[in-house]
Amino acid sequence: MMSAEQQRSIPGYDYGSDELAASPVTLEDLELLKQAVLFTGEDERYLRMAGDVLESRTEQVLDVWYGFVGGHPHLLHYFTDTTTGEPDAEYLARVRERFAQWILDTCRRPYDQAWLDYQHEIALRHTDKKNRTDGALGTPPLVPLRYLIAFVHPLTATIRPFLAEGGHPADEVEKMHGAWFKAVTLQAALWSHPYAREGRF
Amino acid sequence: MMSAEQQRSIPGYDYGSDELAASPVTLEDLELLKQAVLFTGEDERYLRMAGDVLESRTEQVLDVWYGFVGGHPHLLHYFTDTTTGEPDAEYLARVRERFAQWILDTCRRPYDQAWLDYQHEIALRHTDKKNRTDGALGTPPLVPLRYLIAFVHPLTATIRPFLAEGGHPADEVEKMHGAWFKAVTLQAALWSHPYAREGRF
Repeated sequence: MMSAEQQRSIPGYDYGSDELAASPVTLEDLELLKQAVLFTGEDERYLRMAGDVLESRTEQVLDVWYGFVGGHPHLLHYFTDTTTGEPDAEYLARVRERFAQWILDTCRRPYDQAWLDYQHEIALRHTDKKNRTDGALGTPPLVPLRYLIAFVHPLTATIRPFLAEGGHPADEVEKMHGAWFKAVTLQAALWSHPYAREGRF
Repeated sequence: MMSAEQQRSIPGYDYGSDELAASPVTLEDLELLKQAVLFTGEDERYLRMAGDVLESRTEQVLDVWYGFVGGHPHLLHYFTDTTTGEPDAEYLARVRERFAQWILDTCRRPYDQAWLDYQHEIALRHTDKKNRTDGALGTPPLVPLRYLIAFVHPLTATIRPFLAEGGHPADEVEKMHGAWFKAVTLQAALWSHPYAREGRF
C-alpha cells in the first residue's frame, strides 16, 4: 500500500477523499456483479501476487498502452486538443501517472466502499467530469461507451507478458491473468453507469 | 455455413432477414472498433478454426453456460417469470438454440453489414425487444448493461477447455481463444448501443 504522502504526489488522484460522491452501486450489487464475472477470494490472492510482479513494471505496461492508443488516431482523439489538433501532452502525462496507480489499485486495494466510490469517480472522469480534473478543456468531453467496453481486451491481453516476467510457474501466471481479466471486466461494468439510460444500468 | 433451411429451423433466428432494422453502427465505426480490440485478419482465420472445433460441442458449451446462469438466482432472474417466480422453460430453451447458433456465427460469419444488423437485433433483444421474439412476456424486460458487460469474462473463460479439445497445438488453442475473446468483447461493445444515453455510445 502507498502511504498517504505518496498518494498526494499523484495529481488528481483522489482515492479515499471525502470530496468524492458515493457510488450509485451498492456493496450488495457489487457482490452480485463479482459473481457474474466469477470473481472469488482466490482471485484476490492472485491479484496481490500480480501486484508484486507489476509494481516495478508499470512504466513498461504504460509504454505498451500509450503506444497502442498513440498508434490509433481515433483513440488518441480523446486526448487531443480539438482546437489545435495536437495531443494534449500534459493531459496524457497526468492520466498516465494515475493509470500506473490504477494497475496497483486493481491488484491491491480491497474492493470495499472506498474502492466502489473511486470506481464511480473514474466513471465520471470518462463522462461528465472528463477533462476537468486535469484542466484539459480542449479535448473531447467523453470517452464513448463502445471504446470503454472494447478496452477490456487490450488491457487484459497486453498484461500477460508482464505477469509472465515475474518468474512464477505457468499455472500461477495463468491464474494471475484470469484474476486480472475478471477485475478489468468488473470495473468496465461499474464504469458504464453514467453512460446508461435511466433504469438500464 | 448453414443452409437457409437449417437457419429457418431455429425459432426466432432472423439472421439476414429483410425485416431487421439497419444497425446504427456503420461499417467504418465497426472497423475502428475492431482496431480497439486488436482484431485482425489472423483472428478471422483462428475463429474459423475455432468454429470447426466448437461445431460438435455447442451443446456442452451451453450446458456450462446454462449451469452458470442457473446456479445464480440473480442471473436466472432474467429468464424467470415474475408472475410465477419460476424459470420460463420455453424461453430458456428457445434462447439456448439461438445461443448455440451464435457460437457458430461468431466464428464463421463475415463481420459485414448483415452481421452488424444482426448484432443490433441481438442488442434490441436484450432491451427494447426482450421477450417479444419468444413471447416470454412474464420475464424481466431488460438485461442490465452491467451484466451484459460482465458476461464478457465467463463467455470467454469457459470456452477455453472446449477449444483445447480439438487436438490443436497449444499456440493455436491460445490464438483461437484470443480471437474468441476479441470477438466477444467487440459484440458486447456493439450490444451496448440501446443502453447508452444520447451521444454516449
